[in-house]
Amino acid sequence: MRAEKEEPFRSVAVLGIGLLGGSLAMAVRRFLPKCQVRMWARREQTLAQAISQGLADFADTNICHAVEGAELVVLCTPVSTFGQLVEKILPCLDKNTVITDVGSVKQSVHASIGNLLTVKGYSFIGSHPMAGAEKQGLSHARADLFQGTTVALVNPHHVPDSKLLHLAKFWESLGCRPLLLQPAEHDDAVARISHLPHVLSALCARNAMSGDASPSTLSALASSGFRDTTRVCHGNAEMWTDILIANKEPVLKATSDCMNDLATLRRLLEQEDRASINAWLERARLNRSDLLPNA
Amino acid sequence: MRAEKEEPFRSVAVLGIGLLGGSLAMAVRRFLPKCQVRMWARREQTLAQAISQGLADFADTNICHAVEGAELVVLCTPVSTFGQLVEKILPCLDKNTVITDVGSVKQSVHASIGNLLTVKGYSFIGSHPMAGAEKQGLSHARADLFQGTTVALVNPHHVPDSKLLHLAKFWESLGCRPLLLQPAEHDDAVARISHLPHVLSALCARNAMSGDASPSTLSALASSGFRDTTRVCHGNAEMWTDILIANKEPVLKATSDCMNDLATLRRLLEQEDRASINAWLERARLNRSDLLPNA
Repeated sequence: MRAEKEEPFRSVAVLGIGLLGGSLAMAVRRFLPKCQVRMWARREQTLAQAISQGLADFADTNICHAVEGAELVVLCTPVSTFGQLVEKILPCLDKNTVITDVGSVKQSVHASIGNLLTVKGYSFIGSHPMAGAEKQGLSHARADLFQGTTVALVNPHHVPDSKLLHLAKFWESLGCRPLLLQPAEHDDAVARISHLPHVLSALCARNAMSGDASPSTLSALASSGFRDTTRVCHGNAEMWTDILIANKEPVLKATSDCMNDLATLRRLLEQEDRASINAWLERARLNRSDLLPNA
Repeated sequence: MRAEKEEPFRSVAVLGIGLLGGSLAMAVRRFLPKCQVRMWARREQTLAQAISQGLADFADTNICHAVEGAELVVLCTPVSTFGQLVEKILPCLDKNTVITDVGSVKQSVHASIGNLLTVKGYSFIGSHPMAGAEKQGLSHARADLFQGTTVALVNPHHVPDSKLLHLAKFWESLGCRPLLLQPAEHDDAVARISHLPHVLSALCARNAMSGDASPSTLSALASSGFRDTTRVCHGNAEMWTDILIANKEPVLKATSDCMNDLATLRRLLEQEDRASINAWLERARLNRSDLLPNA
């Protein structure tokens, strides 16, 4: 056992250097300065940029070299690439290493690479820091991206508590509040609180231009309401395609609820049922207050 | 004719002192300091608050006293109250007075009070400054609310150009960019760019809580995406009920398009059609860039 004051991991391998991987390296540098940062990225150029910013002690496009000796390995690439990545690192992982990810879905990840790693005797615990931005890439990374955010942790493979606590402490050091969830519970919740906002935001931007009004008129009339409601849909389409497919069933359920609910509002509007429309809108207002008490 | 440098109106009556009326009075004070501000509100208390902030030269709960001698009258109450208000001011309006409003819809307003005022020989031109906030009331009013926003002007009753230009100049003085539209064109456009964001924002907040996840889990996982996408639905439900009913047909059309479009996305997701989902999301991203080139 380590002493309480010791840093949770002495070395971390960050695999993939986009917004999350880059921010993770920056946050480790700032908040866990004794922790060695090892990096892998597909492209030399990305690693060169990270090295020039002083974000890594070791960086290599050879993924086995990057994970060698790392006490913690964090998958920071898109969820759809996890399988290939894990195939490549399996031969070079240490049995004591903790492997985690920053993916937006958990059931499918645990059913695939979680099972694979567990069967081979490795410790995989899922992480999902609720941090992000519509701008992707290392150039938008920042050390405080995780400050004040919740990190969901899922441990369906029952990795021993000591390792789970180490991982929780690691995220806490970077400013996160850990929250232990079941994978299905996590995926249902993020379908509602993260993936649904993305879909409805995109629906809003798409249908702004599907009427008769000219783009120039719409653009002149666009105000802060349109700007904020559509902010998240400005994110990377490919990454979000990945997320929606990876969380297909909960997203289908959430969007089906939306179809029914929007049909209800339309019926009330056709009837000009003032009291019921008011109640429909008021419930939305109260939900938001409940979910964001400090907003 | 007035000299070019003269202020567009020497006195303005602001009827209704909420967020918009209050901000209008503040903006006139700051940017048109020679213009007399006359005020009416239903409640003594609101007027007392406005007077204590130095926002009015004259304030009265008697609406006829408030409009007396005003060169410009601005209706700043909810759209559904315009009829009653105009009935009350008709006996005391001067024939040279320009009457306008700040309502979010234009066709129904012009068909009702627009026609009534025109038949009686008065000059009514519709205004819609694209400014607002989810927080209502005088306490959230600010002089710079209109800065950099577009004000839609509609003049279907063909009030002479000299008066229209005066009104445009008035709004320009407060920081707005005037844009002349037809009432139907205005209502179609705002249904897409303002009312639809409100509906979809409310739909998002409502359906966040209609799944299996507990409110505390959802609240812990709620991040900036949920916060921004649902920001506008925190606005006043009664005011928005008014707006949706007043712009019923264009809102029904826009939400009908959304139903079809969401059904399309759900079908693509059921089929896991990666390329088409990506294209669906990418179109949203491009629309937003087109409509908000500086965001």
